[in-house]
Amino acid sequence: MQAFVTGCAGFIGSHLTDRLLANGCAVVGFDNFSTGQRRFLEQAQRHSRFHLVEGDLLDMPALQAAMQGSDCVFHLAANADVRHGPAFPRRDLEQNTLGTSNVLEAMRINGIGRIAFASTGSVYGEAAIFPTPEDAPFPVQTSLYGASKLAAEGLIAAYCEGFGLQSWIFRFVSILGERYSHGHVFDFCRQLREHPQWLRVLGDGRQRKSYLYIQDCLDAILLATSRAAARINIFNLGADAYCEVNESIAWIGSALNVTPQITYTGGQRGWIGDNPFIFLDTARIRALGWRPRVGIEAGVRRTVAYLRENAWVLDSRACLS
Amino acid sequence: MQAFVTGCAGFIGSHLTDRLLANGCAVVGFDNFSTGQRRFLEQAQRHSRFHLVEGDLLDMPALQAAMQGSDCVFHLAANADVRHGPAFPRRDLEQNTLGTSNVLEAMRINGIGRIAFASTGSVYGEAAIFPTPEDAPFPVQTSLYGASKLAAEGLIAAYCEGFGLQSWIFRFVSILGERYSHGHVFDFCRQLREHPQWLRVLGDGRQRKSYLYIQDCLDAILLATSRAAARINIFNLGADAYCEVNESIAWIGSALNVTPQITYTGGQRGWIGDNPFIFLDTARIRALGWRPRVGIEAGVRRTVAYLRENAWVLDSRACLS
Repeated sequence: MQAFVTGCAGFIGSHLTDRLLANGCAVVGFDNFSTGQRRFLEQAQRHSRFHLVEGDLLDMPALQAAMQGSDCVFHLAANADVRHGPAFPRRDLEQNTLGTSNVLEAMRINGIGRIAFASTGSVYGEAAIFPTPEDAPFPVQTSLYGASKLAAEGLIAAYCEGFGLQSWIFRFVSILGERYSHGHVFDFCRQLREHPQWLRVLGDGRQRKSYLYIQDCLDAILLATSRAAARINIFNLGADAYCEVNESIAWIGSALNVTPQITYTGGQRGWIGDNPFIFLDTARIRALGWRPRVGIEAGVRRTVAYLRENAWVLDSRACLS
Repeated sequence: MQAFVTGCAGFIGSHLTDRLLANGCAVVGFDNFSTGQRRFLEQAQRHSRFHLVEGDLLDMPALQAAMQGSDCVFHLAANADVRHGPAFPRRDLEQNTLGTSNVLEAMRINGIGRIAFASTGSVYGEAAIFPTPEDAPFPVQTSLYGASKLAAEGLIAAYCEGFGLQSWIFRFVSILGERYSHGHVFDFCRQLREHPQWLRVLGDGRQRKSYLYIQDCLDAILLATSRAAARINIFNLGADAYCEVNESIAWIGSALNVTPQITYTGGQRGWIGDNPFIFLDTARIRALGWRPRVGIEAGVRRTVAYLRENAWVLDSRACLS
């Protein structure tokens, strides 16, 4: 089987590429390296079954050509930054919604019938039910990022209905682990490297968030794509717990052996579109036999250990701070 | 007050323009006349308070310039054709999603804070609950049209959250009445004009659909935009009843005084993305005091009478048949 992986040089995409190669698949990886890292592909590049295509999802001819001959698509390429949406109001639409439209068109033209898609728990907006199930009440969007992923989900479902594609849509909480390269643990580690004495926290630190360790996330994706056989398969992916931002600060401080003074910018939300509580109901994926193996605290600690040993990652996305 | 109406030459847009002018507003109408009709604006053109700008939503500089000085936006311009989505897979995305993104950007740049948007009951996909409330279970999209409108809703909500806009989002059933220019009543009237002896019906004729008369629809829009004061206001609009396609055929036949032989293409769905049952819960708009005054049968009969007296409308959209 040949898998086409968009965003293959990203945090999740590079790990998925490694796993698919280890499982015996051929992988064509596609990335524009806007946020992807060449070093994340060092392991993949050692495989003869890996082929890298440097290109942009918005370059339709390049995408269409690169996809030719693949059997399925793992579509992970995205602008994954929720926080800076209002500063770049077109970016989520272009990278996430139009990018997904191009992926679907390229699949249709190439006769590729299966797509797995990295969506987000952000599509639930500020949910009314916790843990939030996949069929939660029709949500109202609170971020351009969530809206762009919701739009992508809608396009995928409509292509399944209109053109007979089959899809697996995964709504993630934040993912932790090696190669983690954006989000609040990243932000805190970078701050504490620059100034171990103090830490600036967006919001009141009481935000409750769920997380998932990268390999648990990949276990779920690979299980679902092999076992779930509906036309459109939608799964929440997350731990069966959540933590307060303040708890994660304590773990990070302990892992880095620092005790910073903390200042809070205040308010329930750290930024526009921040969600004060994210906790997804994962009964659906659990019914397939999946369980996460790494808890939230362990995931945070592994992430911090990785960032400490790979400080270059902390320097790599300074443009977004 | 100066209102900016996109799609001002369309079925609903032209009636809304007439109503706003009658209510004393100034109206800047914007239309690319891809499906809009100049004759629908004859009444509006007699008003000195009406100003028409011929332009396309995808022409951002033109849109931005035309919007300058308006106080609110009624965004009705869209590709309103559900049925032909798969034949033109980009059209809904461009006309509806990107068009809405441009409207929102033009509003942001011009400092305009209020938008009313014509969404659709199609965003519920194949709903699990009837009548379907606004907070129905998170739907799965079944058409590119529905997906494009859902994406537009998401963008609007995210702009409200991110930039302080206020919005009124209306999820319509099919609208009937004078100037009606697409949909199954239109299709049947055109067929019966060409060949009164027979009628070809897509699907099994058992599809159950709800409808709403145009002036009832406008009453609801104008009431909601003046009374509902949340940041994001979402309303279903529809009659408190539905009919079978076969019932509507009987009314149309009776109104036209023909008794055609009917052939069915078969199947529950007339086309890909057709919805076998549409019936919306309108308790939310009713709580503001709104009631529809014209029932479904009367609405169908008025529509048929209009199309009989204005046969030019039946000829105007032949490209879409």
